[in-house]
Amino acid sequence: MAGHSVPVDFRVNPAKISNPVERKTLLQDMLPLIEPFTGSLTEISVCEVPGGNFVALYASDTMTLSVKLYSNGLVTATVEYYTDQVNEHKIANDHGRALEKQLMAKFDCSVAKVLPAIKRAPPVNPYFTSSDDRLLEYDTDGIVFEEQSEFQKVQIYSTKSFGNLLVLDDLQNLAEQDLPYTHGLMNKDKEDFAGKEILILGGGDGALLWELLKEKPKFVTMIDIDDVVMKACRKHMKSVCGTCMDNYDGENYKIIVGDAIKYMKDYIKEGKQFDYVFGDLTDVPISPTPRGQLWDFLRTILGLGIQCVRPGTGKYMTHAIGIQCSSALKMFEEQFEAQDIPVTLTRTSHYVPSFMEYWCFYQATRKAA
Amino acid sequence: MAGHSVPVDFRVNPAKISNPVERKTLLQDMLPLIEPFTGSLTEISVCEVPGGNFVALYASDTMTLSVKLYSNGLVTATVEYYTDQVNEHKIANDHGRALEKQLMAKFDCSVAKVLPAIKRAPPVNPYFTSSDDRLLEYDTDGIVFEEQSEFQKVQIYSTKSFGNLLVLDDLQNLAEQDLPYTHGLMNKDKEDFAGKEILILGGGDGALLWELLKEKPKFVTMIDIDDVVMKACRKHMKSVCGTCMDNYDGENYKIIVGDAIKYMKDYIKEGKQFDYVFGDLTDVPISPTPRGQLWDFLRTILGLGIQCVRPGTGKYMTHAIGIQCSSALKMFEEQFEAQDIPVTLTRTSHYVPSFMEYWCFYQATRKAA
Repeated sequence: MAGHSVPVDFRVNPAKISNPVERKTLLQDMLPLIEPFTGSLTEISVCEVPGGNFVALYASDTMTLSVKLYSNGLVTATVEYYTDQVNEHKIANDHGRALEKQLMAKFDCSVAKVLPAIKRAPPVNPYFTSSDDRLLEYDTDGIVFEEQSEFQKVQIYSTKSFGNLLVLDDLQNLAEQDLPYTHGLMNKDKEDFAGKEILILGGGDGALLWELLKEKPKFVTMIDIDDVVMKACRKHMKSVCGTCMDNYDGENYKIIVGDAIKYMKDYIKEGKQFDYVFGDLTDVPISPTPRGQLWDFLRTILGLGIQCVRPGTGKYMTHAIGIQCSSALKMFEEQFEAQDIPVTLTRTSHYVPSFMEYWCFYQATRKAA
Repeated sequence: MAGHSVPVDFRVNPAKISNPVERKTLLQDMLPLIEPFTGSLTEISVCEVPGGNFVALYASDTMTLSVKLYSNGLVTATVEYYTDQVNEHKIANDHGRALEKQLMAKFDCSVAKVLPAIKRAPPVNPYFTSSDDRLLEYDTDGIVFEEQSEFQKVQIYSTKSFGNLLVLDDLQNLAEQDLPYTHGLMNKDKEDFAGKEILILGGGDGALLWELLKEKPKFVTMIDIDDVVMKACRKHMKSVCGTCMDNYDGENYKIIVGDAIKYMKDYIKEGKQFDYVFGDLTDVPISPTPRGQLWDFLRTILGLGIQCVRPGTGKYMTHAIGIQCSSALKMFEEQFEAQDIPVTLTRTSHYVPSFMEYWCFYQATRKAA
């Protein structure tokens, strides 16, 4: 059950819109092309709106067609209706392409586009965005977990393509098919974790811990503040976290439910250092300047994290954001450079299936003291 | 330059829509939440449409807000405006999420969704669909080639994430980052092409030929009907096809511009057989029954192709469609079974970056005579 809005757009000579007679003809010519999908349409109203634009509204027994005619020649027509069959299109892809051709022929225009129905508030949200705000429709078919924790909105969606998908505050976080993400973060096969001491900051989905344990480390400490995430993943993301979160104390690892900042401060005081420190917390925010709460948090984590790394050989490893967000990445790199402790920075990128984009990962080797 | 439509949706108690006083209050309460993005809105019209639904139209200096109130409680509000900055959102992702929370609080509802702006007829189309008709927005930033050939509409888009992207009749075909597709089709590392005789049916992007030549085959024959595709890819998809289409006759390969069906019939007459025959033509169509022109074509290709395969060891290899299209895949498998020549069928799937979904590939070994 959802509303469907089907965008049907084309561009005409602006004179066809400014001239009242041609405008009327345009609307009259357009209706018969759309009526095969809507049924017979009746005019409800046609009126002028600011900017020299016009809006027209038509209705059939079950649908409405709203049209906006921009003075610059753009015509946006939208078919709207309600449907019980959320994933069934009343204007199928093939029909849409045929309609585009008809519009181009009828109005002698080079641009016409019919999009698949936009789903309006369906029971299970199918839409997420890329890190550069592009709209992506997923084949979600249920929500298997939802809870507002003390820290964030925690959801796990079921998807057909990617298995279960952890979503934190409406952002895709990790799906069952996202091994390339965890392996990218680990810089797998380029790093040797055997016998090493490792600290994970965040990592509540358990995927990084589970993959690291396969590499025979000496000991892994993981600190995540949100037990709701860990319990949800333990139950619904078993294929990525295995059994490592069934017990928070293992043979060669421990999981601490707590604030990573507090623990890092203690490690620094004690002089405790690690071969690898992983920043697996919040993504790098997109913003015009590296200011604000989230950047402050990232800077704090980075500063403390690097202090916990063994000089000379130890590394601070972290994910960042989609590779298209070049200014955010540049700002993040500047944060590394601004640290008191110098590092050598390398960067890799990997395509993450459930993000539908290439993601950037950093490896910062702490220079010898 | 494009129109933007921003969907703002929520669900309320149906009584709030059927009752005229409550309906008026709902609209009055909604406007102040949206006006920060649109500027001050003036009512243009409010009217009833079939199905007991209502439509309201408002306008500010530069934008319109059209609202549809469904008798079942769904409210779809759409902010529309024209912008020169196609990729700049007037309601940013963060603002959208804040607006969702405000709507939920104000109307005591559990569902509210604000989507990124839908782009209406921008100069470069960013939208393609998955094989199961989901809407996907790409970071296209130009069209580097466009020509209507005798056989199809041939376009090559420039994209930020995937490099150049070949689009045939408005369907994504192959991007520069799609090595997993070509390797999936080859069943790479599971097959031994060294010293083998190979026939490619289609394959006009040149990627399969280029990858196969790296495996030291005895000889590869490629037959594609559309020289426009080959010439376009030779120029704009160099990273996938290398230099193999610069000359149509190579040391251990030849490219024939022609109809694969005609050539296969000749091979069969001559008794010429191949170790591998690749079907790299049209994708499997989605349709409720395996009927119609496209299925007939597929069946013909399959029937002739398998006849050209050496019995006992030879294989017919082909791509199919997205793994979510299970009924289309089932129908395709039935086409293999319906052949006079028996085969052993195996199936693999690979995530194809530019398709943003998992794609299915088949390997059919011709049984010994």
